[in-house]
Amino acid sequence: MSVATVNDADLLARIAHLNAAYARCIDSGNLAAWPAFFADSCLYTITSADNYAQGLPAGLMYADTRGMLVDRVSALAEANIYERHTYRHVIGMPFVLDRIAERDGARVTCETPFLVVRIMRDGPSEIFASGCYRDVAIVTDDAALFAERVVVCDSTRIDTLLALPL
Amino acid sequence: MSVATVNDADLLARIAHLNAAYARCIDSGNLAAWPAFFADSCLYTITSADNYAQGLPAGLMYADTRGMLVDRVSALAEANIYERHTYRHVIGMPFVLDRIAERDGARVTCETPFLVVRIMRDGPSEIFASGCYRDVAIVTDDAALFAERVVVCDSTRIDTLLALPL
Amino acid sequence: MSVATVNDADLLARIAHLNAAYARCIDSGNLAAWPAFFADSCLYTITSADNYAQGLPAGLMYADTRGMLVDRVSALAEANIYERHTYRHVIGMPFVLDRIAERDGARVTCETPFLVVRIMRDGPSEIFASGCYRDVAIVTDDAALFAERVVVCDSTRIDTLLALPL
Repeated sequence: MSVATVNDADLLARIAHLNAAYARCIDSGNLAAWPAFFADSCLYTITSADNYAQGLPAGLMYADTRGMLVDRVSALAEANIYERHTYRHVIGMPFVLDRIAERDGARVTCETPFLVVRIMRDGPSEIFASGCYRDVAIVTDDAALFAERVVVCDSTRIDTLLALPL
Repeated sequence: MSVATVNDADLLARIAHLNAAYARCIDSGNLAAWPAFFADSCLYTITSADNYAQGLPAGLMYADTRGMLVDRVSALAEANIYERHTYRHVIGMPFVLDRIAERDGARVTCETPFLVVRIMRDGPSEIFASGCYRDVAIVTDDAALFAERVVVCDSTRIDTLLALPL
Repeated sequence: MSVATVNDADLLARIAHLNAAYARCIDSGNLAAWPAFFADSCLYTITSADNYAQGLPAGLMYADTRGMLVDRVSALAEANIYERHTYRHVIGMPFVLDRIAERDGARVTCETPFLVVRIMRDGPSEIFASGCYRDVAIVTDDAALFAERVVVCDSTRIDTLLALPL
């Protein structure tokens, strides 16, 4: 069935599956595959709810091409940062705000809540971050990608701890 | 497609989207819009699993009209209570117990697990509540509403902290 | 609609509903019903991500028939262990890795993230476990069961605390 004609339940399932794949990529430590979830020309930022509400620029991370995401992941790998951390994302169902039909698919604006637990290897797990993904997803018959993913964290306390992508 | 004839996957998607909208409303601080998720004549209560199991009345909150929910939200707004709190709901998939066809839709009895994280602006986030929504949702072609939402919290420790709706 | 011909959204909804039923069974304390989520000949193990990555045997629990699961639940009931504990599972959307058509349904290999909160009756709730279910689900028109559920916990710290199934 072409995305251009799928009903809402199918579109929702496609986006939920995209989020499941995204979380699985990060949480399994396969960071090299993470940039492939984004379009070549994209927007990926991490910011706080306070900054977002006030229209301030994203303080924690900003990238507007897939190449910048690749660079970021390479830097993390060289610094061996991410081998010491493990995350577990729990991602809610997307709430679709807008859906625009395109030539070969749909451009979907949606918001999705997330919770990220940080696992200490020998200690208690803790809530590392919670918030809302503000996304523009491009869904075609063959693929689903993020054109935009603005990660709005509920807390302002996150910045100093951030090592892995959210 | 009419709700009267949708298959289970579509119905599940409709209810999951209703829950996503509900959580988004509370977590974005737009409490004035919260009563609109309920039918005029409705049941909204918050209770503990112990009270629920023993058939005791809901100790924390009880409303059986949408008007009572409006009043509650107004009281919170006047007291400025909710500006100091932020919640993040993570809501699981609904488990459908019963589905009755009605003239213009379906009346669905279901249970849905939830987790609510409370965000401290400058401190660590913590698990504020977990539990199970025991719902009766009315799903028509144009809308989905709660006729009943009984919020059964796992812990009995919740009462003294409750400011926002769950 | 026969499972043999359902589209991906419907299959995803079936597996998500299976997970919702599974979590509801444990979290409501109805452990006697838990083995019925598995095929007669099955695999259920609990292990840690470290053990799993190194190919080491599951340290925490191992069962390869439904009868062994029944025995386990009976032992917990006799020891009255589970009456003192309450869990709340929050289960993400499944990520489908493989789908094989069978005579009367589909055999689906998938991974699903989970988070389990442990509720203290009079104290704070805490994150008890997080991880990933590595499943083989058998989905037919009438039923959905686990042929395999390998519970891979993110932390190695879980073993000494485990009383209820995950």
